[in-house]
Amino acid sequence: MKRSVEVTVEVRYAETDQMGIVHHANYLIWYELARTRWCLESGMSYPEIEALGYFMMISQAQQKYRLAARYGDRVNVSCRLDWVTRRALEFGYEVRRDEQLLSTGLTRHLWVRRKDGKPCAIPPQLVDLYLEWADLDGFRGPDPRPE
Amino acid sequence: MKRSVEVTVEVRYAETDQMGIVHHANYLIWYELARTRWCLESGMSYPEIEALGYFMMISQAQQKYRLAARYGDRVNVSCRLDWVTRRALEFGYEVRRDEQLLSTGLTRHLWVRRKDGKPCAIPPQLVDLYLEWADLDGFRGPDPRPE
Amino acid sequence: MKRSVEVTVEVRYAETDQMGIVHHANYLIWYELARTRWCLESGMSYPEIEALGYFMMISQAQQKYRLAARYGDRVNVSCRLDWVTRRALEFGYEVRRDEQLLSTGLTRHLWVRRKDGKPCAIPPQLVDLYLEWADLDGFRGPDPRPE
Amino acid sequence: MKRSVEVTVEVRYAETDQMGIVHHANYLIWYELARTRWCLESGMSYPEIEALGYFMMISQAQQKYRLAARYGDRVNVSCRLDWVTRRALEFGYEVRRDEQLLSTGLTRHLWVRRKDGKPCAIPPQLVDLYLEWADLDGFRGPDPRPE
Repeated sequence: MKRSVEVTVEVRYAETDQMGIVHHANYLIWYELARTRWCLESGMSYPEIEALGYFMMISQAQQKYRLAARYGDRVNVSCRLDWVTRRALEFGYEVRRDEQLLSTGLTRHLWVRRKDGKPCAIPPQLVDLYLEWADLDGFRGPDPRPE
Repeated sequence: MKRSVEVTVEVRYAETDQMGIVHHANYLIWYELARTRWCLESGMSYPEIEALGYFMMISQAQQKYRLAARYGDRVNVSCRLDWVTRRALEFGYEVRRDEQLLSTGLTRHLWVRRKDGKPCAIPPQLVDLYLEWADLDGFRGPDPRPE
Repeated sequence: MKRSVEVTVEVRYAETDQMGIVHHANYLIWYELARTRWCLESGMSYPEIEALGYFMMISQAQQKYRLAARYGDRVNVSCRLDWVTRRALEFGYEVRRDEQLLSTGLTRHLWVRRKDGKPCAIPPQLVDLYLEWADLDGFRGPDPRPE
Repeated sequence: MKRSVEVTVEVRYAETDQMGIVHHANYLIWYELARTRWCLESGMSYPEIEALGYFMMISQAQQKYRLAARYGDRVNVSCRLDWVTRRALEFGYEVRRDEQLLSTGLTRHLWVRRKDGKPCAIPPQLVDLYLEWADLDGFRGPDPRPE
């Protein structure tokens, strides 16, 4: 089973818009906060990854918005590693307020070298950590599933 | 052919992150700026739509990030109406710097009544405008296409 | 002595800019998060204040930036009520990383009625709470101090 | 007379908050957009300044909020160089919608070397440009004025 990590976010007034709810762009920022926590708990923090000379560059993102978050809410944002290959990886996210599912999403990333911005393979230090966290015994791409 | 509308955006310093490029959440905000222009040019501005008592609530979004935008860039963001049904609609977006395609994306929306937040049908004032702009002779959902 | 309230903020990647530090506009958002907590702890949350029919509209803000916050930091943001008059009030803020003072700031606010946006007096429900929290025995404006 | 530079900003939906107006933190971002234009027109763009090895690090900011900007507005943001010394400088800003003054503000900055973050003197290439734009015949600090 994929191990997921969770952060709690207190909605900020600045995150609302004149519709009276959280503006949809903020969910990507919440996902990122959960992904930061995921990295930390997986065994190497994202600042450490950058210090090693790598960026986990985003290549795709998808969000579904089911119910709105509002100022005054505390929401839980979970992040799990869905799959990992030698050059790419995908995280999945869920945003909940108590038992209600507000949003689901995913982000795909490519490894890039900091010094020149060129694509590269997963940092060798992360291979075992990430396979373990994704509960995989080898690199594997996305399921051939309908999206 | 779907008619598209375009806005020019000057990258803001605050939109960059420590990777030295525009943070990916800002593309949703640029898409929204292009969608605002689309509404204006389609014949009814989004402030007018809200004044009529409706919200065009976002239900899904997808972004692909191909090349990074940077501080100092001016980018063009286009928006077109991809399809429209009685209760939903989808816009498509392209972000370019000169001839280079930086990002493509889409957003899906549902009509909602301002007074109570309930889903509703497209405002009657918009039916003909939107069908014309989507170059459709009747409501039609998304193509059964692989995504 | 003025009683101050504190929140802990984990720096978000999206809050950094290409200088490699937190962009200065985010401090206002952190101050607001601390002010939200202050309201909650003072006895009436800001959502409750809005539900009563009032806005605490900002009229001025000042920030001093001493040291930069960075991605990976956890910072503490404190908020205290500096003074309160019948129509206005001022909060003061400090942002610290461990013992280091990163930023100080203040915001001034006017009471406004939600229904028509007109200035008004402090909600009667808040008078005693705010005087107690500011440790004042009556309304008092800012000290005649050099700024 | 100090020469000022102006940009036009179309209010973004994401810049509003649930008060129905532009959130106050965005004014700093608009000031920055006008400052970017000021640099460009003064003779050396801010990306060129960074490429030379310098940052114009913010040390203080002040904003006064008089009237609210709203979604649908186009506002003009002006920037002028108020004073410049060997190590610091201050810009002043005005935000207007047609003839109405919405906000005034200022930002103070220190020169910093990119390579090590240490304070430094104004880049020699900018001395004459900035003195001319500030209409000064020599470096001069802030007026001894009441604030």
